[in-house]
Amino acid sequence: MIGRTAYIAVDWGTTNRRAYAMTADGAVADILQDDRGVLALAPRDYPDAIAALRERFGAQPVVAVGMVGSSRGWREAPYVNAPATLEDLAAASLEAAPGVRIVPGVAIRHGTRPDVMRGEETQVLGAISTGAAPPTALFCQPGTHNKWIATVDGAITDFATVMTGEMFALFRAKGVLAGMLDSAVADGAPFREGLRRGLQSRNLAASLFEVRAGVLVGTLAPADAAAYASGILIGADVGTREDLGHRPVHLLGGGSLTALYAIAITEAGGRAVTVPGNSTAAGIHAIRRLQT
Amino acid sequence: MIGRTAYIAVDWGTTNRRAYAMTADGAVADILQDDRGVLALAPRDYPDAIAALRERFGAQPVVAVGMVGSSRGWREAPYVNAPATLEDLAAASLEAAPGVRIVPGVAIRHGTRPDVMRGEETQVLGAISTGAAPPTALFCQPGTHNKWIATVDGAITDFATVMTGEMFALFRAKGVLAGMLDSAVADGAPFREGLRRGLQSRNLAASLFEVRAGVLVGTLAPADAAAYASGILIGADVGTREDLGHRPVHLLGGGSLTALYAIAITEAGGRAVTVPGNSTAAGIHAIRRLQT
Repeated sequence: MIGRTAYIAVDWGTTNRRAYAMTADGAVADILQDDRGVLALAPRDYPDAIAALRERFGAQPVVAVGMVGSSRGWREAPYVNAPATLEDLAAASLEAAPGVRIVPGVAIRHGTRPDVMRGEETQVLGAISTGAAPPTALFCQPGTHNKWIATVDGAITDFATVMTGEMFALFRAKGVLAGMLDSAVADGAPFREGLRRGLQSRNLAASLFEVRAGVLVGTLAPADAAAYASGILIGADVGTREDLGHRPVHLLGGGSLTALYAIAITEAGGRAVTVPGNSTAAGIHAIRRLQT
Repeated sequence: MIGRTAYIAVDWGTTNRRAYAMTADGAVADILQDDRGVLALAPRDYPDAIAALRERFGAQPVVAVGMVGSSRGWREAPYVNAPATLEDLAAASLEAAPGVRIVPGVAIRHGTRPDVMRGEETQVLGAISTGAAPPTALFCQPGTHNKWIATVDGAITDFATVMTGEMFALFRAKGVLAGMLDSAVADGAPFREGLRRGLQSRNLAASLFEVRAGVLVGTLAPADAAAYASGILIGADVGTREDLGHRPVHLLGGGSLTALYAIAITEAGGRAVTVPGNSTAAGIHAIRRLQT
């Protein structure tokens, strides 16, 4: 495997890291996945981390995306402004060390609201580069921070970050809902009921208290509270999108959370299309081709 | 003072406790305020806590309201259902020990959504009992959990709990906004700007991320982030009320948070009226009169 590796692609996030041994034609020859995310590393730790990746995959160039380029990461790669294309990202990449490039994130600085991303831009534009998604589309990337991303002709033109997953985690850990949200979240009647509640909710901070009130007055079984709360949060997120009737939503990421978003989008009257393949590796490969 | 005390009224909350030495005609002769709230006491601690209050104020009957009557308190006083009057609360009071009565809270069990309160019902109906507020009115009680309460002819008919304050506290303590929300929150340009953003926000979990994005792209000064975030949260809460144009909002509680809500209600096109006086003590006195 090592012999075929042309360069190393790294999706370097806050908590986790995925490194790919990439062939010259963009195939993934090998994968390393671990918890050596940005939070686990100080800036001085990165040269050793890179050396270890090269030890494993071969002494090749490295292209990294994600929080590694943030102020909490190795070196800050200043955001490029939307609208942003793969060419913009390639041109603004930062050489952090010999043969190691960090791809910047994308920012919205003007208009009615600011927003930022690091890593998601590469996934979305990667999906477009392989033809897995059309150049003009609406994307959804569920996670701790869900991202809604609109592209036009292969450029990221607008996006919104929604702290849906983080809010669930905060309420599960502390406050009056703590101890009520520990059950597993899966599709089923409680999730669907929460979803319908969330889709029509106009005040999320009020709807979430209904989880506690429902358990106290006996209308919500304690074992159903986590799925119901998750439904409220995802429903409130999806329910505020006014463009779901116009075009399909291209869902990125393959986990159970993505499946719950697909259900929510359908329930809201939209159409969810799951994007196949490893779009982040594809996006890094497209950027790498533009640089060499 | 002790000689005049006819009974002891206790507003026994989650974190704090206020005990009032009450005269026969409902005046407050003395006040004890401390942090012996429900979280600081186990059920077996209450008899000693009552003995200490009687040591301080005289060996008189005790009437207590608030979380002391919850499943986390001393003994559970089952909720009365809305619509609920002072008479309903007096009739459903629980004798927890000789001469000690716990007033129940109010629940919404039917209809589109469940909700519960413990303590706020006595404050609202107390304000009505003294004439400080009209019998048919809309009330707002800012706090960790803001309550919007509607009354008709002296009965609590509907209410909603909004976890605005708790959400601010959770985001300040943990997650991607932690470290950004430590400045003091006060009225000023950043709060007003957040307020306008919150009033028009349709997705709270997205608007809150703009705090982080604004700091990262330089459109929001780090020192202004806490006031801006508070404005978003209060604005999103007030902005979902559709009845503000129809009638004034009677604001209960005298702290700085109440002042910020008054500003938000005015900004949303409503009219805020601050209710004077100690309405909880007045409410307990009205309940006590119905019991003796």
